[in-house]
Amino acid sequence: MVGVSDRKQFRDLVAPDVAHDAIASLDLAPEPETVPLAAARGRVLADRIDADLDVPGFDRASVDGYAVQGRDTFGADEAEPVELDLAGIVHAGVEPDVEVGAGEAVEISTGAVLPDGADAVVMVERTEELGPTDAERPESIAVRNAVAPGDNVMLAGTDIAAGARALGPGTRLTPREIGLLSALGYDEVPVRGRPTIGIVSTGDELVRPGETLHSERGQIYDVNSYTIAAGVEEAGGEAELYPHAGDDYAEMERLLLEAADECDLVLSSGSTSASAVDVIYRVVEERGELLLHGVAVKPGKPMLVGELGDSAYVGLPGYPVSALTIFRTFVAPAIREAAALPEPQTATVRGRMAVRERYAEGRLRLMPAGLVTDADGETLVYPVDKGSGATTSLVEADGVVAVDPDTEYLGEGEAVEVQLFSPDVRAPTLLVVGEDDPALSRLLDRVDNPRFLPVGSREGLRRLGNGVPDAAVVAGPVDRDVETVDLGGWTREWGLVVPDGNPDDVGGLADLADRDVAFVNRGRDAGIRASLDAAVEELAAERDASRRELTDAIRGYGVGTKGFESPARAVARGDADAGLGLRATAAKLGLGFVSLGRERVRVRVNPDRHGKPGVEELAAALDAASDVFAALDGYDAA
Amino acid sequence: MVGVSDRKQFRDLVAPDVAHDAIASLDLAPEPETVPLAAARGRVLADRIDADLDVPGFDRASVDGYAVQGRDTFGADEAEPVELDLAGIVHAGVEPDVEVGAGEAVEISTGAVLPDGADAVVMVERTEELGPTDAERPESIAVRNAVAPGDNVMLAGTDIAAGARALGPGTRLTPREIGLLSALGYDEVPVRGRPTIGIVSTGDELVRPGETLHSERGQIYDVNSYTIAAGVEEAGGEAELYPHAGDDYAEMERLLLEAADECDLVLSSGSTSASAVDVIYRVVEERGELLLHGVAVKPGKPMLVGELGDSAYVGLPGYPVSALTIFRTFVAPAIREAAALPEPQTATVRGRMAVRERYAEGRLRLMPAGLVTDADGETLVYPVDKGSGATTSLVEADGVVAVDPDTEYLGEGEAVEVQLFSPDVRAPTLLVVGEDDPALSRLLDRVDNPRFLPVGSREGLRRLGNGVPDAAVVAGPVDRDVETVDLGGWTREWGLVVPDGNPDDVGGLADLADRDVAFVNRGRDAGIRASLDAAVEELAAERDASRRELTDAIRGYGVGTKGFESPARAVARGDADAGLGLRATAAKLGLGFVSLGRERVRVRVNPDRHGKPGVEELAAALDAASDVFAALDGYDAA
Repeated sequence: MVGVSDRKQFRDLVAPDVAHDAIASLDLAPEPETVPLAAARGRVLADRIDADLDVPGFDRASVDGYAVQGRDTFGADEAEPVELDLAGIVHAGVEPDVEVGAGEAVEISTGAVLPDGADAVVMVERTEELGPTDAERPESIAVRNAVAPGDNVMLAGTDIAAGARALGPGTRLTPREIGLLSALGYDEVPVRGRPTIGIVSTGDELVRPGETLHSERGQIYDVNSYTIAAGVEEAGGEAELYPHAGDDYAEMERLLLEAADECDLVLSSGSTSASAVDVIYRVVEERGELLLHGVAVKPGKPMLVGELGDSAYVGLPGYPVSALTIFRTFVAPAIREAAALPEPQTATVRGRMAVRERYAEGRLRLMPAGLVTDADGETLVYPVDKGSGATTSLVEADGVVAVDPDTEYLGEGEAVEVQLFSPDVRAPTLLVVGEDDPALSRLLDRVDNPRFLPVGSREGLRRLGNGVPDAAVVAGPVDRDVETVDLGGWTREWGLVVPDGNPDDVGGLADLADRDVAFVNRGRDAGIRASLDAAVEELAAERDASRRELTDAIRGYGVGTKGFESPARAVARGDADAGLGLRATAAKLGLGFVSLGRERVRVRVNPDRHGKPGVEELAAALDAASDVFAALDGYDAA
Repeated sequence: MVGVSDRKQFRDLVAPDVAHDAIASLDLAPEPETVPLAAARGRVLADRIDADLDVPGFDRASVDGYAVQGRDTFGADEAEPVELDLAGIVHAGVEPDVEVGAGEAVEISTGAVLPDGADAVVMVERTEELGPTDAERPESIAVRNAVAPGDNVMLAGTDIAAGARALGPGTRLTPREIGLLSALGYDEVPVRGRPTIGIVSTGDELVRPGETLHSERGQIYDVNSYTIAAGVEEAGGEAELYPHAGDDYAEMERLLLEAADECDLVLSSGSTSASAVDVIYRVVEERGELLLHGVAVKPGKPMLVGELGDSAYVGLPGYPVSALTIFRTFVAPAIREAAALPEPQTATVRGRMAVRERYAEGRLRLMPAGLVTDADGETLVYPVDKGSGATTSLVEADGVVAVDPDTEYLGEGEAVEVQLFSPDVRAPTLLVVGEDDPALSRLLDRVDNPRFLPVGSREGLRRLGNGVPDAAVVAGPVDRDVETVDLGGWTREWGLVVPDGNPDDVGGLADLADRDVAFVNRGRDAGIRASLDAAVEELAAERDASRRELTDAIRGYGVGTKGFESPARAVARGDADAGLGLRATAAKLGLGFVSLGRERVRVRVNPDRHGKPGVEELAAALDAASDVFAALDGYDAA
């Protein structure tokens, strides 16, 4: 392994247009293939299809009625019907065994072959059966209107005739084209091939979803493989996942060349480690041709484009949001082109910036953005920036705003255009921030398309004060004054989650300070932490000690975990003796619980958004939430 | 079988809203199912997904650099770097085997576990290696900027914490959600089931595509099965095709009940025969419940809605265009609802009627409509009405115009709204009508998204005169005066197609009149027929006979076939001795040919459309068509 400071830097970044051109210059197009008609929907015809037969293949009755010689009916009307002898019957799907002579009629079904001699069909509604009433079948019919030759008959080849151009090359097959191909008898069709895209994920730390994760070794689940595979399929390609490679040159070379041999395009992706990128870089330089490395786009600087054997090659950045953004912007259009899929409908939304956003880095920035509507239904846009490493940014943003390299900042209220991730992205109807809580999770299930950001009570209230979200969920004591409308709430019992049966016999807060108990706390933004801090103050006052003396005495007090279940899970794993949490969480995980009190959880709404439909929906869910509170230990309607 | 006049009439038609409500009242929703993550794209979550682990699961270095105790770096800057001893190295994916003490630093890769003792990471760019230059590894480093605890570290659970609400029920899974599910380690997910839709096609005359067709028995290919199956899949359902049933009650009952047992919804479809519909009607009435029969919509009057066993049931009309229109309008929304797919983007186009269209029937009419743009790019709309039996209407229309029951006519120039068949329908860039010709087919392959209607030269010129199409292709002598711009053309050799080797030794037109030769002609709209008629006039004049005397003497002269290859194919099948056709067709089918002359084929353009891009494209294709003419026997650039 090379030393840290020797690692390759990507200094000569090219403009986005140059990267587009480089990828467009690669050949991803596969050979055409033949697929069964039943699997042809969405595919694109490789060749022109000419009709190989007449449709219909025979002169066909287009109504139920009687096949006749038209001239026999001339002059017939309601007043003076013409009488014709009934000579037989022709059913659909059966070869006629009868001819129609002068003065004769033959009963015929819609779709049946017009028998020889006949040149028209009289509709059954314009006829009457004649003959002895006790006969099985009538002997003759009365025809009450005249038909000309060709009336109510579809001549052979009228729909489409042999030799005619039916569908052109490049036609995308929808149910309608499949209908025409069926009529022509095709049970398989020549279509443009789907490019095969090999996905090689790299990085020693990656584990495939479903496998066991060893966090202590720094393992994380491989996000890019399935994400990019789904993106490939959305763009009309076929994704092939390869086992992921570490940083070893020989192994990486073997894997990349195998993928290049089997695929039209190889995408490497997955590692955030400069050394893995460096190894790939060397393989492509030595066994293929590197066309460019580095594009002046944020996110996504470390992007490689080249050729490897007979295959095209693109190296995506390692962070999932960066990888998907670069994939969408540069690679997906090339896959669609190779698969002959149309560019998707441009889906953009115009809105106003909800906050000021500074920026000046000399690169095109594809800023992930979330959408929220104000009470008038106008769209507000806010940046979603949790750092490139965060996978939640994937779902917390609705699209990107392309920010010019020269733009220094976007002002609050400035009009921007958001390129949605796909045309069917629906902006959330409700944006809630604040305290994560199991009752809230269930309430949100009853709201159509909400978004919740679990930033904690304190940060939630701060954000609500800044005017972006619709509502904040706030638990415990509050030290910030923000003007809000209270939508309602509940109370929940909080305390110490301990192992089942409370083996250390932890009795309360005092034991944390007085005994050697390994404690796991929550972070400062959590409302439950504010409740704990208040209880600590109280205990300190009782003991006439300083707050600091007490917290220093509690092992683990200063280290806050992010999730509301995290302390309890540490206890469940045996990593701690007690953790700050809810009675409901202890019950869910089968752990013991020492109550320290109840705290209020309130849903507080931005006064400007009070009438908004999503807020009304949440209010209605709150009003009808008694079943939710009843199902959670320690919960109560406020 | 019941007699023709006893057949059920559908008199009490219900309003479209009533039909919508009836279908909405049926339960199509299947049970949820679990699918592998790799197959989850496009599916809809059945349940809320909460995070079951912290992401990341450990405190993680977010840059390449050195893990340190932040307080050791306080005060460090470019002028006065702080020196720290190098205590070891931590790679991504490996458990740290080193701790960071006071005054120490440990080399760390992006994504690696922060070792015990450390609380921050210094970026490599802000450090310098120190120590003897010949050493394998440096002994210490100089740190040139201060870091606070937490800097360049992503704490465990920061991305998403255990217990947090990750995705709500009803979320549609795109690559982004698949990314988050990957991060959480899910390799399978609970999703809403896809409703299974059984398709029972009926009618003794139907043959599945790919099987042998017996036209003499009145067989036709089954169009509805694959068409509706493709529509079902587009709407998010899974289609199950059942073998098709005839008109027999017991067989129909067995098949429908089998489908009802296995599916969430049974669609019957395929037969145009009133007796087959009647049998189905009786089965549903006797073995289930019929909720309604007949909706006041054109096309599509004979529509059934009911229940059969535990399954829902809808009977579609038999004609393909009617079946697909009724399916799209009434059934697809219910399937999407059951599959939890969103309604597709409403795709409508506004345009002006290109022609006057009369209508008054007291039913809502879903008029199939084609689109063409004028030279200014404005959209013109024209009705496509080839009769419900025509499968080509499926691809010759771009959408439907809903015409109110009270509307008596749509005037030329009147503004109408066209509901496109799907959002990605592209209006043709060029609308050509007229003479079908193999060179034309090849030229159109070189134009992006053209539409050609093979209506023959005479009808083509008539339509061009009415102002709807962009261009007409006209062959042979012309008797109509229409103002056009000539775009160019070619000549083609025409005559009599005879069996290979010309066994009857047919020498020319005179032999058709003078000998017993079974001849197959073309219809009156074909330009090649106009050439033949002119040759007949000439021969009649030579013989001093009337035209009629001559044509009466030619067996088959009066019966015109539709397709340009149809007469030659009749000869190839042994059904005729000679057919009107092209030398190119005789060569393609391996038949003999007796030349009767050459005729001009001209591409004539509507003067108003001369500058239109599609017309320009066709002109360019014509200019570069020498390879097309060279490849066709008897063809020549004009």
